[in-house]
Amino acid sequence: MRTDYCGKLTAEHTGSTVTLYGWVDRRRDHGGVIFLDLRDHTGIIQVVADPVRTPESFKLAESLRSEFVLKVEGRVSARPEDKVNPRLETGGLEVYADGLVVLNRAETPPFSIAEDDEVDEKLRLRFRYLDLRRPQMQKNLRLRARVVQLMHSYLDNLGFVEVETPMLTKSTPEGARDYLVPSRVNPGDWYALPQSPQLFKQLLMVSGFDRYYQIARCFRDEDLRADRQPEFTQLDMEMSFLSLEEILELNEGLIQKILGETLGLKLPSPLPRLSYQEAMSRYGSDKPDTRFGLELVDVSDLFINSSFQVLSSAIAAGGRVVCLPVPDADGITNTRVKPEGDLFEFVRQFGAKGLLFARVREGGQLDTIGAFGKSLTPEIAAGLIERTSAKPGHLLLFGAADGATVLDYLGRLRLKLGEELDLIDPNRHDLLWITDFPMFEWNALEKRLEALHHPFTAPRPEDEHDLKTARALAYDIVWNGVEIGGGSLRIYRRELQERVFETIGLSEEEARAQFGFLLDAFEYGTPPHGGIAYGLDRLVMLIAGVDSLREVIAFPKTQRAQDLMLSAPSAVSEKQLKELNVRSTLPPQGMAKS
Amino acid sequence: MRTDYCGKLTAEHTGSTVTLYGWVDRRRDHGGVIFLDLRDHTGIIQVVADPVRTPESFKLAESLRSEFVLKVEGRVSARPEDKVNPRLETGGLEVYADGLVVLNRAETPPFSIAEDDEVDEKLRLRFRYLDLRRPQMQKNLRLRARVVQLMHSYLDNLGFVEVETPMLTKSTPEGARDYLVPSRVNPGDWYALPQSPQLFKQLLMVSGFDRYYQIARCFRDEDLRADRQPEFTQLDMEMSFLSLEEILELNEGLIQKILGETLGLKLPSPLPRLSYQEAMSRYGSDKPDTRFGLELVDVSDLFINSSFQVLSSAIAAGGRVVCLPVPDADGITNTRVKPEGDLFEFVRQFGAKGLLFARVREGGQLDTIGAFGKSLTPEIAAGLIERTSAKPGHLLLFGAADGATVLDYLGRLRLKLGEELDLIDPNRHDLLWITDFPMFEWNALEKRLEALHHPFTAPRPEDEHDLKTARALAYDIVWNGVEIGGGSLRIYRRELQERVFETIGLSEEEARAQFGFLLDAFEYGTPPHGGIAYGLDRLVMLIAGVDSLREVIAFPKTQRAQDLMLSAPSAVSEKQLKELNVRSTLPPQGMAKS
Repeated sequence: MRTDYCGKLTAEHTGSTVTLYGWVDRRRDHGGVIFLDLRDHTGIIQVVADPVRTPESFKLAESLRSEFVLKVEGRVSARPEDKVNPRLETGGLEVYADGLVVLNRAETPPFSIAEDDEVDEKLRLRFRYLDLRRPQMQKNLRLRARVVQLMHSYLDNLGFVEVETPMLTKSTPEGARDYLVPSRVNPGDWYALPQSPQLFKQLLMVSGFDRYYQIARCFRDEDLRADRQPEFTQLDMEMSFLSLEEILELNEGLIQKILGETLGLKLPSPLPRLSYQEAMSRYGSDKPDTRFGLELVDVSDLFINSSFQVLSSAIAAGGRVVCLPVPDADGITNTRVKPEGDLFEFVRQFGAKGLLFARVREGGQLDTIGAFGKSLTPEIAAGLIERTSAKPGHLLLFGAADGATVLDYLGRLRLKLGEELDLIDPNRHDLLWITDFPMFEWNALEKRLEALHHPFTAPRPEDEHDLKTARALAYDIVWNGVEIGGGSLRIYRRELQERVFETIGLSEEEARAQFGFLLDAFEYGTPPHGGIAYGLDRLVMLIAGVDSLREVIAFPKTQRAQDLMLSAPSAVSEKQLKELNVRSTLPPQGMAKS
Repeated sequence: MRTDYCGKLTAEHTGSTVTLYGWVDRRRDHGGVIFLDLRDHTGIIQVVADPVRTPESFKLAESLRSEFVLKVEGRVSARPEDKVNPRLETGGLEVYADGLVVLNRAETPPFSIAEDDEVDEKLRLRFRYLDLRRPQMQKNLRLRARVVQLMHSYLDNLGFVEVETPMLTKSTPEGARDYLVPSRVNPGDWYALPQSPQLFKQLLMVSGFDRYYQIARCFRDEDLRADRQPEFTQLDMEMSFLSLEEILELNEGLIQKILGETLGLKLPSPLPRLSYQEAMSRYGSDKPDTRFGLELVDVSDLFINSSFQVLSSAIAAGGRVVCLPVPDADGITNTRVKPEGDLFEFVRQFGAKGLLFARVREGGQLDTIGAFGKSLTPEIAAGLIERTSAKPGHLLLFGAADGATVLDYLGRLRLKLGEELDLIDPNRHDLLWITDFPMFEWNALEKRLEALHHPFTAPRPEDEHDLKTARALAYDIVWNGVEIGGGSLRIYRRELQERVFETIGLSEEEARAQFGFLLDAFEYGTPPHGGIAYGLDRLVMLIAGVDSLREVIAFPKTQRAQDLMLSAPSAVSEKQLKELNVRSTLPPQGMAKS
C-alpha cells in the first residue's frame, strides 16, 4: 500500500521507510550508481539503486527505461549537500530502493514526458493519454477541477441547488446550429443536443427552485474557430426574485472567490460597470480591455463641413468619423498606416475603406499628407487637439464608416497597438460589467432583427414601449478584454415574450411550435427571474494563463471537430443506421487529417 | 429584498418585519379575514389580510387565486393558541400583510400543487414545471443534489480529481446500442454519445491522474423498461495502484457517508461479501435481497435416481433440482402452485416447465400429489427434511432445469413470496458486495461468449490460464436486492487484453479498429488500476424511497423515450438534415402519445 506521494516527501520523512508508485521520468547512471527520477502527479523524487547498498534493485534498475511503472520501497535520506537539486521541491532528498517492482513496461513514447519540448499538437492529441502525463497538463486539469470545486462550495453555501437538465432535447432553430440525434423508437424524429440549458433553467424557476446551478455540457455545431469547441462546459445559474443589482453582487462574490483562491487577486467591490454604448464608443468593443488607454474619440462634428469629401459625405450618410489617438508614436512609420502598410491592411480586413492619419508636432501643428492634410483647417486642428488631449508625438488615426463598422475596426486596431506598444501590464487584472446592451441587432443576411443575447432577455421597463430600440436588462462580465460570462433578467410575462418573438420575425405559429411550453408556463405563476452563464473552459484557460481551450480540456476536438485519439467521428455500420431509420447522403470520408 | 424564506420563520421572528416571496398555496376567507398560505421551497407560512389592520392588502387579497406569485411585507405574530396548526412547521405563526404585491398571476393549474392527489403521470410530465412545484418533487431533487454534494466532498478529500470526458465520442459495437450524431463537418461520419466514460477513465489512469471521478451523463438506446431512461447519470470513479480490498474499503466509506448523512444509517464495516456462485445458489440472484431467508437448496443429488423421470432426466442432462422451502405456508393453497395457479404461471414466464411441491406435516411426513408424491421414497423425504431444515407447516417448492434457469425463476419466486409473506423488515438495510463474477456468459443468440461486465475487466490471476471459465476481479454493490454500483480491476497488459477480445470473438482487425488507442496505450506504461460506477438516479430513488426513476429526474423521458413537455424528439427541417448530409428513411411520426 502506498504510504506517500513522490512530490510530497519532505525533510520530515528522513529516516522513514516509504512505499511509492510512479513512472520513471529519467534514469541516470552515475559511476556505478543508478538514479531514477520517479514521477507521480505530485512531483518527482530521486530513487537511488546502489550496487552495494541495494544490489537487487541495482540489477533491475539497469533494465529500466523512461515511463516504466514502478513500485518502490525504500528509506528516505537527505542528499549530501553538494548533491542538492534546488530546482526540485524534493531536491534535498533521495530514496534508497530496498524494493523495486516493475508493474509495467513502456515503449519509448512518441514524445518526451520529462522534457518540455515543443511537440506537434496533432501528435499530442493522438497520444493524449501521454500528453496528459506532462506536469503542465496535470496542473491545468487539476486547476479546472479546483475552479469547479470553488463554484460548488460558493453556490451551495448560498442555497443554490444543482439540477441536471436533459441532453436529449428538442431542436430550436433560433441560435446556432444544433447537433441532432435520430430517435430509433420514434422513427423520423430527432433529438437535439442542448446549446444551453436556458429553457430548462427558466422552467426550474417556474417550478419554484429559487436558485439553480449546473456545470452543464453544451453543444454548438459551428464552423470552428481557433477558440471554439463543438462541446463545451458552462457554469449555468438562474435565480428568482433577485434584482439586477443583487444578481451582479452575488456574481462578484463568486468571481472574487475563484480568482482570489486561484490567483490571489483582490478585486474592487463593486466591480466597475460600463454601458454597452460607452464601451463601444470608448473602446470599440463590447468586451473592452481597459488595462490601457488609447481610447477612441468621436470627432464627427468637427468634420461635418469638411472639404475632404470622404469624411463629410460619410457623416451626411449617417456615419461617424472616429479618432484613435496614439501617444509617443514616432516609432510607427507612415508607411505602416498608408495603403499596403500592415496597419492599413489590418483594418481593411474588418471593413475599413481607408485609414487617415496626422501627427502632432511641437506647438500643436498637425502634420499629414495629401488632400486630408489640406482639409484640416486651423479650427479643425485645434478641435482635434483639444478633444483628444493629444501632445506632440501623438499619432492620430482616423476612420470613417457607419458607427458599428468604424468602432469595430478601430477597436481592433487599438488592441493591436496596445500590445505592440507594450501598454498592457501583465500583472493587472481588469474585471468589469458591460450593461444595457441593445435587445436586438440587425441580421443583414436574413434581413431581420435578431436577439443580441437570446429572445428570453427582458427589456428595460422604460424601453418596453418600443422594443426595436430597447435596451436589455443584460450584463456581460469581461476580464482583460475577454467575455467570461453573460446573462440577463428574463421575460416572465407571456404578452411581452410574444412581442419579442414577433420582433424577431417568429410567427405566432412558429413561436407556438417551438416554445409553446414556455408560453404556457408563463400562465401559471412565473416568478421574476434572471441568470447568467460562464464559459468554464475559457475561464480556466485565462486563470491557467494558456492560450488555447485545448490546454484545459482533457480530450478536446480539433478545429475539424475530430478526436484524433479515438478517430472520431467515424463510419458506422449499415446495421446501426438501418435500425435508426437514417442514411448518410455522402459516403464516409475516413479521418481526413485535420 | 427578501429577508426570509416562508418555511424558515420561527418564534424568534415574532414581532419583526419580514419580506417574503412565494406562491399562493391556498386562499381561505374566514369571516371577513382572508388567509393566504404563502409557499416557497422551504415550506408554508400563513399570511393574514385583515380589513381593519391591513385594509389595502385585504382588498387585493380578494382577487388572489392559487399559484399567484406574491411579494409580502409584514409583521410576524404568534397565532392565538386555539389557531395553532400543529401539522405545519410554522403553524404557530402568521404574518400580517402590510404590503402585498402581485408579481404574476396564474391560471388554474391542470392539477393541484397543494393537494397530494394522484395525478396521471402523462399530465405531470407534460406540465413538469408545475409538477416540480410539489413539495415531494422539490424534496426529491434537493435530496439528489445533496447526494452529489456528499460524493464531491468525500472524493475531493481523498484526492480524487474530477475530469470531464467527451460526449461526442466514437461508436463501439460491444455493449448496448449507441445514440449516434451525424457530423456535418465530416460528412458520412458519426459520433456516438457515450454509454459510459469507461475508456476515457482508463486512459486517465494511463495519464497518471491516479484518482479520477465524474458525475457523468451516459446514454443507452435500449428498448425501455420501466426502470430505464435513455440518458442517465453515474458516479464514475477510477483509481491506480489500489488493490481490490483497498477499492472496496474506500467505497464502503463513500456509501457510509451518503447513507449516514441522508438516512442516518450505520453500516457494518467491512460490508458482507458473497461470491457470485454463492449468491446464485442461495438466492437465485446476483443481486440478492438478504433481508429475509427463504434460501434455495440444491437437492439434485437426492433425485439422481428418482423414479420421477422429469427430475432424474433433468439431472442426467446436466440440470439441477432446486428446492425453495417456505415456512408457515398453510396460507398458500395448492391451487396457487398447481398448473394455472398464479405462482405456477409466474415461474413459467421465466422459463420453468413446471413447479412441484410438497407440504411438511407433523412427524416429518411429506404430503403431496400425483406421480411426484409416489416417487418420494422415505429416504428422499428424510433427506429433504434434513437438507432444508423444514418444520411442519413448510411448503417445499421444487424446480428442475439447467442451473441458470432454475435458480433464476426460483430466485424470483423467493422475492415474490418474501414480499407476500411480509418477511421483509422495511427498516432493515442490507448492503453487500457480490464478487468473483464469471468473466463471460454465453450469448445464445449470437452463439458466442460475451463479457459479463465489459471486456476490460481483469480475470483473477489464478484463472488467467483458461479465460473461458475464469472468474473476474469484479464487484457489484447491492442494497436491499438492488444493484447500485459495480466495477472491477482492469486489464492493463496488452497481451491479456488481446486474449479477452479474442475470447469474445472480436477479430484482431476489429479490436484494432475499435480499441487500437487502448491497446497502444498499454505499451507506454499503464499502471494497475480499477474502478467502479454507481447509478446515481437509482441510488437517489432508493434513498428517497420512491419507486420510479422519473421521481428523481427533473425532466425525464417516458418509456417511449419522449419528453412530453418539450414534445421531443420531433421532426426537424429539411434544411437541417441536408446540412448534415443525412436523411430519415421514414417520415416523422409526430408525437404519438406514449
